[in-house]
Amino acid sequence: MIKSALISVWNKDGLDDLIKFLDENNIEIISTGGTQRYIESIGVDVTPISAITGQPAIMDGRVKTLHPKIFGGILADRNNPNHMNDLKEMNAIPIDLVVVNFYPFVKEAVLKNLELKKAIEYIDIGGPSMIRASAKNYHSVVSLCDNSLFPEFIEYFERTNGVFPLELRRKWASKVFEITNIYESSIYNYFSPEKEPTPKSLSISVNLSESLRYGENPHQTSGFYTEIDSNLPWTQLQGKKMSYNNYADMDSAFKIMCEFEDNCCVIIKHANPCGFGLSNSIKDSYLKAISTDPISYFGGIVGLNKIVDAETAKELVKSFLECIIAPDYTDEALEIFKSKKNLRIVTHSKGNDQHFNLRSVAGGYLYQQSDYFEEVIRNCEVVTIKNPTNSEWKALDIGWKLVRFVKSNGIVIANSEQLLGVGAGQMSRIDSVKIAIRKAGEAGLNLDGAILASDAFFPFSDSLNLAGKHGIKSIIQPGGSIKDKNIINEANELGVSMVMTGKRHFYH
Amino acid sequence: MIKSALISVWNKDGLDDLIKFLDENNIEIISTGGTQRYIESIGVDVTPISAITGQPAIMDGRVKTLHPKIFGGILADRNNPNHMNDLKEMNAIPIDLVVVNFYPFVKEAVLKNLELKKAIEYIDIGGPSMIRASAKNYHSVVSLCDNSLFPEFIEYFERTNGVFPLELRRKWASKVFEITNIYESSIYNYFSPEKEPTPKSLSISVNLSESLRYGENPHQTSGFYTEIDSNLPWTQLQGKKMSYNNYADMDSAFKIMCEFEDNCCVIIKHANPCGFGLSNSIKDSYLKAISTDPISYFGGIVGLNKIVDAETAKELVKSFLECIIAPDYTDEALEIFKSKKNLRIVTHSKGNDQHFNLRSVAGGYLYQQSDYFEEVIRNCEVVTIKNPTNSEWKALDIGWKLVRFVKSNGIVIANSEQLLGVGAGQMSRIDSVKIAIRKAGEAGLNLDGAILASDAFFPFSDSLNLAGKHGIKSIIQPGGSIKDKNIINEANELGVSMVMTGKRHFYH
Repeated sequence: MIKSALISVWNKDGLDDLIKFLDENNIEIISTGGTQRYIESIGVDVTPISAITGQPAIMDGRVKTLHPKIFGGILADRNNPNHMNDLKEMNAIPIDLVVVNFYPFVKEAVLKNLELKKAIEYIDIGGPSMIRASAKNYHSVVSLCDNSLFPEFIEYFERTNGVFPLELRRKWASKVFEITNIYESSIYNYFSPEKEPTPKSLSISVNLSESLRYGENPHQTSGFYTEIDSNLPWTQLQGKKMSYNNYADMDSAFKIMCEFEDNCCVIIKHANPCGFGLSNSIKDSYLKAISTDPISYFGGIVGLNKIVDAETAKELVKSFLECIIAPDYTDEALEIFKSKKNLRIVTHSKGNDQHFNLRSVAGGYLYQQSDYFEEVIRNCEVVTIKNPTNSEWKALDIGWKLVRFVKSNGIVIANSEQLLGVGAGQMSRIDSVKIAIRKAGEAGLNLDGAILASDAFFPFSDSLNLAGKHGIKSIIQPGGSIKDKNIINEANELGVSMVMTGKRHFYH
Repeated sequence: MIKSALISVWNKDGLDDLIKFLDENNIEIISTGGTQRYIESIGVDVTPISAITGQPAIMDGRVKTLHPKIFGGILADRNNPNHMNDLKEMNAIPIDLVVVNFYPFVKEAVLKNLELKKAIEYIDIGGPSMIRASAKNYHSVVSLCDNSLFPEFIEYFERTNGVFPLELRRKWASKVFEITNIYESSIYNYFSPEKEPTPKSLSISVNLSESLRYGENPHQTSGFYTEIDSNLPWTQLQGKKMSYNNYADMDSAFKIMCEFEDNCCVIIKHANPCGFGLSNSIKDSYLKAISTDPISYFGGIVGLNKIVDAETAKELVKSFLECIIAPDYTDEALEIFKSKKNLRIVTHSKGNDQHFNLRSVAGGYLYQQSDYFEEVIRNCEVVTIKNPTNSEWKALDIGWKLVRFVKSNGIVIANSEQLLGVGAGQMSRIDSVKIAIRKAGEAGLNLDGAILASDAFFPFSDSLNLAGKHGIKSIIQPGGSIKDKNIINEANELGVSMVMTGKRHFYH
């Protein structure tokens, strides 16, 4: 039976109902500071903590509750006569319910960018200590660490006359450690803003932002999670619920779009780009993108890096697409999309600031710094007698930026305006070249004068040879093979130019 | 200047040196309980906490340090006259150094599988409260929350005569929240062992198990992380340091191996299987695996699900391979591997118990339950007039188990003994079929009587048609296309059998 409740809360949502309920049930309310004043303001009597401890709050409230009479009251095992005797000898009482939430460190310190010296005032010491103590002693004490639990508490109390089963107390105790875990994680991140390249330990606390219908496949449950108090980087304006695969593909579309200044359009299927166009108009960039592979783009994710207008929207609704992502849409465009109720229309609200990525593997996690470009390709070494033409440089730029997002081994064939062929995910490089060439041919695209980008070096000259035979005039690749000399000779013999970037971009 | 130190530690590694050093520098040592007894046993004087608080430890030590005189001493801002006055009025002294480590919850409760009722005794309340208070007040107080910091503390103290710069105090304060974060995470995980399908919040605390040379590419830093106090699931017996891509590929190899009882060998390149054999002997399974793609397997990761003997080792050292993983190796086999110093030889120590996977995408994380098989293919529906033969059922089993680990769209062609062709990572299904057929042909493998597995349904009958033309006699796929009827008719016309599993296995 609950006879006394210690209440110390910053967030007072729903507190009135709880207080009145406790009061009606003749539960003694113990409190201090702002919470005490608030409770008194709604006309309910409070036992001040100082009346129990005989010690006023000191140091501007830094020390209020940290007292053996309070902690003894929370921590005493009710089934242990020695504990109860210790409590009696101190002239203290058992505290049966602890209601605590913490100084809002994230809201007041992190989001307001407080300097650390001021931020530390939002590091709650007494609150976590009390609620952790109550959770430890969940056999004897009820812990409420989240205001969303108040209605459940009241409802349960009414139904069972104040008897809370062990299982429920345990669940609420578990919630305490969930919340302290998140709280400590926020503070730690604030204290250590500079991420080491490979930190000694990694702590990730994220909240379910959106429960997804399923994962990569219907039999896998799934969710999208974001950091505490952060917002979704995407806003969906219409259409079916986003799926796991939509999120993953959108990630690729978004990252590719971020690489280009001019109007561009990229189409993603199965995490690979299967269409890309660069143009003066956003509509034209889409038309170019679909011409890369006029069959595979069906059901794709389309990313456009400029505001989508009505002209473009009219083209977009002609085919079945899963999802469109762009910085924004004109009102007319949004009207047009309404004719396709299922089509997901998404705006992205911020840049790509991911500085690392994480994936689980059996036994643990692989962490790595995100891949990035530091190479400005115009500054990279041309290793052949021939130099790329201006138009080829433009095409090489497209090829190099796209091949990084093609699953390895990745090959991209492009001209200065669009993607022509993609060879993705093969276990040998020559296979990727064969596929890229075949795909471009099947789409009726002319390879004459096109360029080829390879995400890693060529182990042999066979790929080069094949590319040259099909009209490729310039090649970009990292270099670094022991056969580089042969490869350069082969390029010179074929009369193609070749740029070596020095940087590999595997992506699996 | 540090005049007093509060010490409360469970782990006493390196404590002797620290205590003697503090004593030599005339720093008053305040302590209680086991730590107090330990310090006295090495002949150093201690001020008992009870002498400061006037309050003995109660409730079997549950309440020892939680007292305003202790917390006032830690939390008083030395630059705030009111704080210092409050301290004086209480007749308490400032505490300048706090040395705390916690009850070892993971070691004593988690690893020993204590029931929760006993485990809670290892939830430290006073320790985290004190060290958090000292970290909050890092402007005035030095926090040592980890014994590994003791030598650094002593060295710094000697060099600077006990003056610790703010930056260092801040670094150590940051370490406090790193450690409390991990501690709370362990407790939370212990309290909530049942993982919800998509939990409301996710908390992952992992330690750097091995710093890797680099990530997917040389310009990305990287590390392999494991849960607190867990061990590496792999042991490397010889060879170069494991790379990020080795870990990722090994993960695939390992998961595939786990699916088969008989002697099998799988070879992974760029996260896709490029060779697989099933046989009576482990050596023969390797020979079959390399025949799948006798060129691409170079530089691959080889997984074998049985103990590797000398005969097999002799074959394995004939080609350049990156890494071999198996449950174990005979001594003779290990001798043979020594001739190839760089070759990574790895044993795996446990099964695959990953129940979810996580990947970062822009703005957050995608979490999903791991993919798994629940379908026993012999129980799946044969939708065609023709039934698979016994040997075809065996081949369908291989195909279905492998295609799940081929990047989507994934196609696998196999017979009852080996993988014949893989079509990986294509944006249209027919392309994957074309690639799988071409690859098998280039390797000189006979497709007559082979089977084809598809990770998702066929949108059109073109893939089927192509497969039938090349001698494929049986097909396994999830079904679920609106064109299923046409597809089944087509299969009947071609005279091939077809099994529908009802489960898709996309994998990106």
